[in-house]
Amino acid sequence: MAQGVNRYRADLREFEFLLFEQFHLEELLGRAPFGQWGVDEVRQTLKGAYRFATEVYGPLNASGDREGCRVEGGQVYTPEGFKGAWTALYEQGWRLVGTDPEHGGQGGPRVIAALVEELLSGANAAFNMYPGLTYGAAELLDQCGTPEQKARFLPNMFHGVWGGTMCLTEPQAGSDVGSARTRAVKNPDGSYAITGTKIFISAGDHDLAENIIHMVLARVEGAPPGTKGLSLFVVPKRKLSEDGASGENNDVQLGSIEHKMGINGSSTCVLNFGENGGATGYLVGEVENRGMSQMFLMMNFARIGVALQGVALASAAYLSALEYARDRRQGANIARWKDPTAPRVPILEHADVRRMLLDMKARVEGVRALVCKLALHDDRARALAGRDDERSAYHKGQVELLTPIAKAYASDQAFRVCETAIQTFGGAGYVKDHPVEQYCRDSKIFSIYEGTNHIQSMDLVGRKLGQNGGAHTQQFLGDVGAFVAEHREHPALGAEVRALGAAQEALSGTTLKLLEWFQGGQLALVPLSSTRFLEMMAEVAVAWLLLDGARLADKALGALAEDHPERAFYQGKLHAARYFARNVLPGVELKARILAEGDTSALDIPDAAFATV
Amino acid sequence: MAQGVNRYRADLREFEFLLFEQFHLEELLGRAPFGQWGVDEVRQTLKGAYRFATEVYGPLNASGDREGCRVEGGQVYTPEGFKGAWTALYEQGWRLVGTDPEHGGQGGPRVIAALVEELLSGANAAFNMYPGLTYGAAELLDQCGTPEQKARFLPNMFHGVWGGTMCLTEPQAGSDVGSARTRAVKNPDGSYAITGTKIFISAGDHDLAENIIHMVLARVEGAPPGTKGLSLFVVPKRKLSEDGASGENNDVQLGSIEHKMGINGSSTCVLNFGENGGATGYLVGEVENRGMSQMFLMMNFARIGVALQGVALASAAYLSALEYARDRRQGANIARWKDPTAPRVPILEHADVRRMLLDMKARVEGVRALVCKLALHDDRARALAGRDDERSAYHKGQVELLTPIAKAYASDQAFRVCETAIQTFGGAGYVKDHPVEQYCRDSKIFSIYEGTNHIQSMDLVGRKLGQNGGAHTQQFLGDVGAFVAEHREHPALGAEVRALGAAQEALSGTTLKLLEWFQGGQLALVPLSSTRFLEMMAEVAVAWLLLDGARLADKALGALAEDHPERAFYQGKLHAARYFARNVLPGVELKARILAEGDTSALDIPDAAFATV
Repeated sequence: MAQGVNRYRADLREFEFLLFEQFHLEELLGRAPFGQWGVDEVRQTLKGAYRFATEVYGPLNASGDREGCRVEGGQVYTPEGFKGAWTALYEQGWRLVGTDPEHGGQGGPRVIAALVEELLSGANAAFNMYPGLTYGAAELLDQCGTPEQKARFLPNMFHGVWGGTMCLTEPQAGSDVGSARTRAVKNPDGSYAITGTKIFISAGDHDLAENIIHMVLARVEGAPPGTKGLSLFVVPKRKLSEDGASGENNDVQLGSIEHKMGINGSSTCVLNFGENGGATGYLVGEVENRGMSQMFLMMNFARIGVALQGVALASAAYLSALEYARDRRQGANIARWKDPTAPRVPILEHADVRRMLLDMKARVEGVRALVCKLALHDDRARALAGRDDERSAYHKGQVELLTPIAKAYASDQAFRVCETAIQTFGGAGYVKDHPVEQYCRDSKIFSIYEGTNHIQSMDLVGRKLGQNGGAHTQQFLGDVGAFVAEHREHPALGAEVRALGAAQEALSGTTLKLLEWFQGGQLALVPLSSTRFLEMMAEVAVAWLLLDGARLADKALGALAEDHPERAFYQGKLHAARYFARNVLPGVELKARILAEGDTSALDIPDAAFATV
Repeated sequence: MAQGVNRYRADLREFEFLLFEQFHLEELLGRAPFGQWGVDEVRQTLKGAYRFATEVYGPLNASGDREGCRVEGGQVYTPEGFKGAWTALYEQGWRLVGTDPEHGGQGGPRVIAALVEELLSGANAAFNMYPGLTYGAAELLDQCGTPEQKARFLPNMFHGVWGGTMCLTEPQAGSDVGSARTRAVKNPDGSYAITGTKIFISAGDHDLAENIIHMVLARVEGAPPGTKGLSLFVVPKRKLSEDGASGENNDVQLGSIEHKMGINGSSTCVLNFGENGGATGYLVGEVENRGMSQMFLMMNFARIGVALQGVALASAAYLSALEYARDRRQGANIARWKDPTAPRVPILEHADVRRMLLDMKARVEGVRALVCKLALHDDRARALAGRDDERSAYHKGQVELLTPIAKAYASDQAFRVCETAIQTFGGAGYVKDHPVEQYCRDSKIFSIYEGTNHIQSMDLVGRKLGQNGGAHTQQFLGDVGAFVAEHREHPALGAEVRALGAAQEALSGTTLKLLEWFQGGQLALVPLSSTRFLEMMAEVAVAWLLLDGARLADKALGALAEDHPERAFYQGKLHAARYFARNVLPGVELKARILAEGDTSALDIPDAAFATV
């Protein structure tokens, strides 16, 4: 077995392609709000983050999984080495790439922060939850907090002195956040006494920071039922003294931690607030009952984060499988398969292994392109705000529309790619000597947290499709249509582009079908179909982006000498796009046909008919 | 949370339906070779095995996973409780249902032994590996050994005094069995000295039996290269004295055990044979170089065993998810989704949950029907041998054809169903309080061992399709075609039956396409397409069997009063078949179209183009 099979790898050439050849990030650099960023800064950041991920995060990935978290004296202890990685992360500034310079951050484009996230999560998804949640909590407070709250909490949160969490879920309130029962009672000093139990709190307790700042959804007495009666509170684990130092426990007790399928290095906590009279919380902002809409402000951010986790593990699994396939010799070339004396070849030569590898490559690169496009829409929206508000609104709309798609599709594809990576390894993929079984276990949670993938699909069909009078959807379909119109006779990719056109039409048709069901009172068909509708839309988006990349690769190839070392890279782009367009994309039309037939067997079956036990 | 969520469950009503309503096992009972078996014996056996599985195996499933195996003093120790389960299994006779009465077994039909296997594997897949491998090794010896070898080894192996294993894989010889290097040198006494390293040996060492009988593939010096030079040896872990007692170590050393994604209670061993001069082995049968064809005699048996493991965990995962969905309340009914005061309903009421459950149900029942059909072909072949050799040959041919399909499809579906079960649970599915994450981890190995699923697909297209001049394939396609012709105007299921007809035609077309590639020198397209071809054939088979079951259910419904308690069961059969025919089956035609286009992007892509790292 070759050395280094277990080492985290990423393909930075691919990042470079997306940023500068396909999506033209350079147009945004050197001017507000990215005045401090040029192409060199981008390259140095990615290279440095990759080195950091490989050298600091990577070595703790398997060991963190095996060791897991433990509870001692009501406190979570993270695996060996995590504290050092936390310190190094903040000291070296890798958590600050996207942070506003106002908070001491580097103010980089969202797309760069996203790719840095991919590198960090890919090297150690479990560890990266701690700083990830901390950053999310800080951003939430930055968007919604009062100036005093920001001053009090943000410096320590952005710089890793304190950790942070999001506390939504309760035993009876999972997908149904509005059923939350945690109570908030106003104290005479204007703070609130928080009482209740929160579960599945990622990074809910740990030993990495001197305090943990919990962002807690709770209901003030007398507030309306459902999500409209939820308020958001900031609740530190340890009380803060006047000078901001962390003091005694703020009545936030660790109940227990979960034992999970994966991300074992990340603590998943039951937290009991106020068992001794009430944890002191501070209303975020100044008005009660705004908790849910405040949370929504961060939802896109958090969901793109999960999409990135999916891309990260899918990519890591793919590159592990590729390395193994290049190294592992087994069987003869098919041309000599009956000859037992034929030399054994790397399994990369076998057709089914190539099929699996290209399948993984296409999905990884397609989903990464989708997430980068999404992040860049956000960057462009910010860059254009005030200069060209109409274009800015277009970009914002695409962020809204594509976020649930990216979250759900990237997470589902991550699990699928990890499964395929295990299969590529064969028996070796099932044992812990190689990282792919852990990637697979770790990745399963991505389809569940931050809103299950079905919740994403309902967000898509129930809110995003019709948002702004359906404008975002029309613009998306229009963008794909314009690409098809322009390139349908492309000499190398015409057939694939026309297949995209057919899929786009099928998708448009299903969009109308959904509208018909909404308006025609066949409401139950909508959630029955939404998961598959999201998949259709994701596959159209991914095929589009892959084909767009392939078109650019084809152009680049035309300009390169036959022996140019870059040719292989561009050929890879071409073949991945072709594979996806020929093997995956045709499924969109099929799904459209199936959905149009409106099969209701799953609704019609009587409850008792599922099984007799 | 309801009690008992973690308890193993099976739906015996479904077993009953398959055996007596769909496949008419009763035709075979009460006459040779099943003269001792009647309907009552079948029912008692299944009921008793279910109770045994639930009470003895089930409680050790999670604990065995958490504890795993350990090595001490060169010996594997299995988890707490496994020894007791082993003893109980053999004492109560559950491992003897299908064993020949000549060996003290009950001589039951293969299909009953199969369903007992499902119950045992479903309750504890890891534990059941030990007796499963032992039985397989004993059957192999029974088929190929000399009378002396049988007398010496079989009584103890069939009755659990000794364990058994299959030793094929070596570090350089996985899928490529013919690369095995383990050597056998003939001793003056006619025995052989065996030297070499075997890896991934399931149940390769343990503390459950006083000896372990290894069935080892090795190469006698001077034998030809490849599979044709492999001989099969029986190599006990401990030497046997003249009176058959187990004595000192026979130079078989445990190297190490693997740390795996799942089936942690099952030891997976590196075994070093002959580090101190040579382990004593006995040639199985009397002629060298027959090892591979001897192994092939057991291959179908072993592969059906893996298919059953797949059915077992898929079914267990489905029924766990169903129980959770009935119990867990979350959200309001869709008709009142905007009303926060609406009562919370069991998630079983939500459309997407129902879709996932029905999807699982259809796959579980379809794959189980396929495996039962396969086992019954074997039973009928035996029952008809000598009475109607032509029909017997037909049944044998179907066993050959369907075995790789059942192995690959059942194992892939198991992982898919377990994934869906986790998704049905949501966050609760990711934690070890519920069994589904373990089912998912355990099930991943099924697509790999006993020949990876790609190996199965190559067995299908490279051997089975053309076997006997293509007769088995023609018979299979003809059976499906006859069903379609007879029922295409069925009042309740006509559309679905016609969809099956279209899929069968697409499958036939692809069969011809494969033949064309074989004969036209486009050999590389065959392994590139075989995995998907197998899936097409499996989906046609499963849809056929589900629709056949649905047709019978529809008939039964017609005879039942509106308030008859059995109605729900039959309605379940109808809806599952409809769901599969409408949502999964159409994929067959799509795959046929994709394969016919002969996309070669995975072959065309240069090796260096997969990634730049």
